[in-house]
Amino acid sequence: MREVAIIGVGMTRFGELWDQGIRDMFAEAALKAMADANVDKIDSLYVGCMSSGLYTYQEHIASVMTDYMGQRGIPAARVESACASGSVAIRSAFMEVASGMSDIVMAGGVEKMWDIEDGTFVLATASDQEYEAYTGVTFPGLYAMMARAYMHQYGLTREELAQVPIKNHKHSVHNPNAQYPFEMDMKTVLTSSMVADPLRLMDCSPITDGAAAVILCPMEMAKQFVKNPVKIKAIGAATGPIALHDHKDLTRLDAVRLAGERAYKMAGLKPSDISFAEVHDCFSIAEIIVAEELGFFDYGKGGKAIANGEATYGGKIVINSSGGLKAKGHPVGATGVAQVIEAVEQLRGTAGKRQVENAKYGMTQNMGGSGGSSVVHILEAQ
Amino acid sequence: MREVAIIGVGMTRFGELWDQGIRDMFAEAALKAMADANVDKIDSLYVGCMSSGLYTYQEHIASVMTDYMGQRGIPAARVESACASGSVAIRSAFMEVASGMSDIVMAGGVEKMWDIEDGTFVLATASDQEYEAYTGVTFPGLYAMMARAYMHQYGLTREELAQVPIKNHKHSVHNPNAQYPFEMDMKTVLTSSMVADPLRLMDCSPITDGAAAVILCPMEMAKQFVKNPVKIKAIGAATGPIALHDHKDLTRLDAVRLAGERAYKMAGLKPSDISFAEVHDCFSIAEIIVAEELGFFDYGKGGKAIANGEATYGGKIVINSSGGLKAKGHPVGATGVAQVIEAVEQLRGTAGKRQVENAKYGMTQNMGGSGGSSVVHILEAQ
Repeated sequence: MREVAIIGVGMTRFGELWDQGIRDMFAEAALKAMADANVDKIDSLYVGCMSSGLYTYQEHIASVMTDYMGQRGIPAARVESACASGSVAIRSAFMEVASGMSDIVMAGGVEKMWDIEDGTFVLATASDQEYEAYTGVTFPGLYAMMARAYMHQYGLTREELAQVPIKNHKHSVHNPNAQYPFEMDMKTVLTSSMVADPLRLMDCSPITDGAAAVILCPMEMAKQFVKNPVKIKAIGAATGPIALHDHKDLTRLDAVRLAGERAYKMAGLKPSDISFAEVHDCFSIAEIIVAEELGFFDYGKGGKAIANGEATYGGKIVINSSGGLKAKGHPVGATGVAQVIEAVEQLRGTAGKRQVENAKYGMTQNMGGSGGSSVVHILEAQ
Repeated sequence: MREVAIIGVGMTRFGELWDQGIRDMFAEAALKAMADANVDKIDSLYVGCMSSGLYTYQEHIASVMTDYMGQRGIPAARVESACASGSVAIRSAFMEVASGMSDIVMAGGVEKMWDIEDGTFVLATASDQEYEAYTGVTFPGLYAMMARAYMHQYGLTREELAQVPIKNHKHSVHNPNAQYPFEMDMKTVLTSSMVADPLRLMDCSPITDGAAAVILCPMEMAKQFVKNPVKIKAIGAATGPIALHDHKDLTRLDAVRLAGERAYKMAGLKPSDISFAEVHDCFSIAEIIVAEELGFFDYGKGGKAIANGEATYGGKIVINSSGGLKAKGHPVGATGVAQVIEAVEQLRGTAGKRQVENAKYGMTQNMGGSGGSSVVHILEAQ
């Protein structure tokens, strides 16, 4: 298996992009990534996207994108695993390069979510349609059940839970691509609209338009293109129960644990080797459970540790330096790719005021549904 | 790059499967493939599906399927390239095995199309949404323009065009999984309802429910599981213009030609080495143009050659021994996988009355949209 590097990254601003359609956003991110990698031609394309069909009535989007980015003719496919679609696109691109099938492969992600009224209905198609969505449960409701169970089981307070989005919004202030780059205090979280008890509006990642793209090539070729390649040291992917009622413990996300274990094993690393992580904080409770499943904190200790500053600069590990899904935004298919872009910027040392010092290894963790799937990447500075 | 074999195949009957949901159909095909391969565990799963979102309001289907086939925990992803989704799933599985990332990988495909009223609207999302679908063009309309152009340019008659579905229905009679396994005469084609002039109902592949799955492993491991592995000799994939108005010539499908050229090059073979081919006859005209792009007939000669018996038993090459999309059925995401299953059965010598004699190499050609994407596989008997 050939070693694989990331040589270029590009993304749109995340937010309400009323003047850009899905193909415009993707082309912008793709062309930025190609410019960053100093290539004018790619050999293959993967596009992570959860639901361009329901959001924009456009399937077959990988072909649309090759056309609109000026690369007509190359192989291209869309890859989907709900909110983890961006990461599975990178995993597919990784294997295409690792296998020797192609050299310069783009993995991108995109979602155009603001053009329809009922974005939450579309998101619910990532849950179990027959047993969850059909009965009226939506994702805020599913994660609210997880939050309630965790608070009960481990004594986490509502105020401690609020420290997750407060931290992530603080980080986002220095991210020029973030949808909501502002600081937020405890009162703002605790008085925001109730969405699904105990989760309030400021516990929930937003509806976002956006696109992101990275370019992979064999490690041995990387320095031909750029001075600062970043190595994809390991990828772990896993599935879990599609329905929340099939979790043996509502405070656990088995797919995340499995994906993390597989990534650590492939990399030959352990949690304490990781300097920073971009994790899937679709709701405040998610970041806490994920941080535990990845081994950064013991079960039941993650919530209080994050509230005590252990997941920000100066703590044990920096989690979501980008602002996370909550503050940076969550254009579903683009999220996993944008996480990797944050990791690349950190490992290149170009993250500006968000820079994590002396980072050798960074991790990203992306998740579909209520743990139906998860992908973990470990990246290494060169 | 490791050599890759197919060691197991399984599929549902194609048709109107009113008593099976999307997950039931997929699990049936998947478990049949696992039984055929003598494995009770797979390492990874790809599911080709065009639009489970619009057809069934269920995205995230690869996770649903791992759950319902009893393989929870493994990596899984859906892959989409419109009607070529099944083939890109196989291509992804191929690279996962070839790279050494995993050993036993399933590539499946599924589409549940009969549960909603307006299947043609959903299919139109595979065309250019902004310039084609939005204006009201559907796929019968797009392929009708191609048919009209071809008839004008090369003097193909309406009767000659009808020989494509007549041949494919004749083949389908011996396929127990076919949706419409009956013979059909010229009068039936020429008096069937007009859909989009010159294409009539009997020129159009049907709306179909169905699922199909194959299991891949490294060639060097294949004989541990089965006596009759079939080698994936080559895969070629390509994109073309997403919109028909961007084709320089309406009688050409550039993505098919490119995918074919790449597959022949990877295999070190030429068209005359291929004994049979399953091609994407979504409409009668498609089979003709595809057969030309793959080099089986010269440009402009394919229609008359097929009408003259050159694409059936005893002719130059047997095309669509399974009955093709027209008679076997076209459950979009499953189609590319089912094509490969037909090729595997032919190369194993287990195709019964459909058997093509002395076949060493078989080809499959799957296509998205009006040539927005195409994937070609070449399989080799062992």
